[in-house]
This record gives sequence, structure tokens and C-alpha cells, in this order.
Amino acid sequence: MSENQNPYDPQQSQPLLIVISGPSGVGKDSVIQRMKQRNLPFHFVVTATTRRSRPEEVNGVDYFFISSDEFADMIEKGELLEYAIVYNDYKGIPKEQVRKALTSDKDVILRIDVQGAASIRELAPDALLIFLTTQNEDEMVHRLKSRKTETPEGVNLRIATARQELKRMHEFDYVVVNRERQLDQTVDTILAIIQAEHHRVKHRKVSL
Amino acid sequence: MSENQNPYDPQQSQPLLIVISGPSGVGKDSVIQRMKQRNLPFHFVVTATTRRSRPEEVNGVDYFFISSDEFADMIEKGELLEYAIVYNDYKGIPKEQVRKALTSDKDVILRIDVQGAASIRELAPDALLIFLTTQNEDEMVHRLKSRKTETPEGVNLRIATARQELKRMHEFDYVVVNRERQLDQTVDTILAIIQAEHHRVKHRKVSL
Repeated sequence: MSENQNPYDPQQSQPLLIVISGPSGVGKDSVIQRMKQRNLPFHFVVTATTRRSRPEEVNGVDYFFISSDEFADMIEKGELLEYAIVYNDYKGIPKEQVRKALTSDKDVILRIDVQGAASIRELAPDALLIFLTTQNEDEMVHRLKSRKTETPEGVNLRIATARQELKRMHEFDYVVVNRERQLDQTVDTILAIIQAEHHRVKHRKVSL
Repeated sequence: MSENQNPYDPQQSQPLLIVISGPSGVGKDSVIQRMKQRNLPFHFVVTATTRRSRPEEVNGVDYFFISSDEFADMIEKGELLEYAIVYNDYKGIPKEQVRKALTSDKDVILRIDVQGAASIRELAPDALLIFLTTQNEDEMVHRLKSRKTETPEGVNLRIATARQELKRMHEFDYVVVNRERQLDQTVDTILAIIQAEHHRVKHRKVSL
């Protein structure tokens, strides 16, 4: 306990690093989007990616859409907290964003695939890892197929990967089922988890 | 993972044993009372005590007010999960109540003093322990003094004990500050903690 902590309320407001992960098709992007719409005092980290933007996506808001050369440059300069090849595209988390947000006392929200979440755990063992899932496989397959941006082969690859990723749920802290047409309920559960974590006696202290 | 668990949602609804504790004067009784008023699907365990009832208290609802002989009988028959002498009065948790509630799939809420909470932790390591506290010492002293049921010596004894008990906060899972005139906020925080715990990947499994 540091000197200037109130012994009656030692938690105060240390920011959390919250990782929202889960297989493709569970609705990570929709959940993050709904969280943003609620004007909550979080810092949402924008991922850099070499993939092409989908029609509804906005550069700098949904992702930083950058070229392979720019991505290579960020890797070389050590500017990425974590990066991975996901379905032939590169995705990475710009380090500077996470650092800035944590020092500004805001909770930081990171959306990342399952393998990326495991890397974050190694870099920041006190990160809060939330695994999003669907109610069942049919629901996940349905969501993947209804994305018009995928080829049939792409969909099958994602389904196979999702099945494998589901087995890594135990590496996470929390699991939240993103039920069909219950996006607000999913967000409420995530907010309850974040609220609860701020009251843990053994508080997570993230430094990068 | 048991055979009939859904791999997409392994948590399902295993009941939790939730212990609400903290020093005298932090407002445990008021918090429990407000929780009851909200008609939540919890089982509230009623403590047996040999102390005299306060004017507003109802036998069987707030406590089971029993004689010293009846209490001795429950101890001898092993009918108490835990018991302690608190300020010359005996308080104990009837075992049967907790067992019944857990088998009925309801979360069980237990209000207990700090030393009792430590005993529950030994009996049921997966119990969820919440430490209630006040914003500062003045607030706790004020609450203890405004209880007309205490003698001045009684108040001083409770203040001294509360100071000691505060040092045991680190034995708990969560700490919640019960701010003055913010009872609903306190209850909301406790509910968020309970909701979050139902989504933990490593679920607490209580058996007694």
C-alpha cells in the first residue's frame, strides 16, 4: 500500500487494460461499437492493419488502414505492442496509444484476436482478458456466413480456426456469451466485470 | 468441464456463496436490507444470535433471536457452519440454510463479521468475500455513535476493533466503500461484482 493511499479505500482509480477477444464471428466489433456509442470514459485502442477496409469502416476510428510497408516500418521501430498475421493480413497494436491512455488514468479497451490476447497476457500479466463467445456453433457459423466480405474458403477457414480458439477460453479471466440480438446485455455484462475489477482487493497494475 | 456443459458457455448458473463483511459501523445491515428490498433472486441467510433484538428488528428476518441454551444446543449438534462471540453475544450461521439455498441454485448471501469471514474462507475457499468499508474513520465513528443501542464503552470497543479489522481487508476478494447516503450505489457495486463472478472462467464452486 503506497503512502498516500486511503486505508479505507485503497483501490481508487488505477486504470485497467481490458482485452476483448474471442473467435471470428462472435461479434467483437459490434460489441466495441456499442460500447463507443454509450460515451463511456474508456480509451479504445485503434488497431493498425494491412487488410482492406470494409465499406462501413472508417480509417482511424475502426482501424488504422496502413500499407504493408508502413506496417513493416512500425515493426522495425518497435512501435507495436503486439502484432500477428491474421488470415494473411497483418494486425498490430500501436504501443504509444496504450501507454498514453494508461497514464491519463482511463481504462484502456483493446480488441484483439485470441492468439494476440495470449501475447498481451505475457507482456502485461495483469491485463483483464475477456473471451467473447456465441451461444452455440450454429450462431457463430451463421454470423461468419452473413459477412458478405468473405469467400466460401475464407468462411471455412474461420470456422475451423474458431473451433480451435474456443479451446483456449481457459486462458482468459472471464467469458461472456454475446447472445443474438442482446448486444446491450453483452455490453452491460462487460461493464459489470470492469466495475467489479476496480473493487478487487488485489488490484491489477498494468505497466508496459 | 462436465459432459453436459455447453463448451460455448461453460459458466451457466452455478450458485455462489457471497459473504458481506466489514467492521461494525460500515453499514452491513443497511446494505443487506436494501438488497432485500430490491427483490433480487438471492437467498439471504439469517444469522442466529443470543443478543437482544433492537426495536426495529424482526425475529426470523433480521436474525433468529435465540437463548444461550438453544445456541449451546446448536453448537453441540454441529448445526452451525460457523459461530463466534461478538461483543459478549454469540452469533452463528445455521448450516442447513446455506446448504438448502446452494442446492436450490440460488446465490447465497451471508452477512458476517470479519473474524467469521475468515472462518468461512477456510470452510469454503471458493466463497466470494466482500469487505465493506466507510470513506474514512470519522464516518465509521459517527455511525457507531449514532446507534443509540451502545454504551460509550461499547462504542469505544467497537472503534478499536474496527481499526484492527480494517487491517484484514487484504484477506478479502473485493472492497466496496459504502459512502454516506449512497446505499444504492453500494448495492449496485455489489451486484456488479456478483454478475462479474458468474462470468469468471475459473468459476467458484462452493460445497459444504
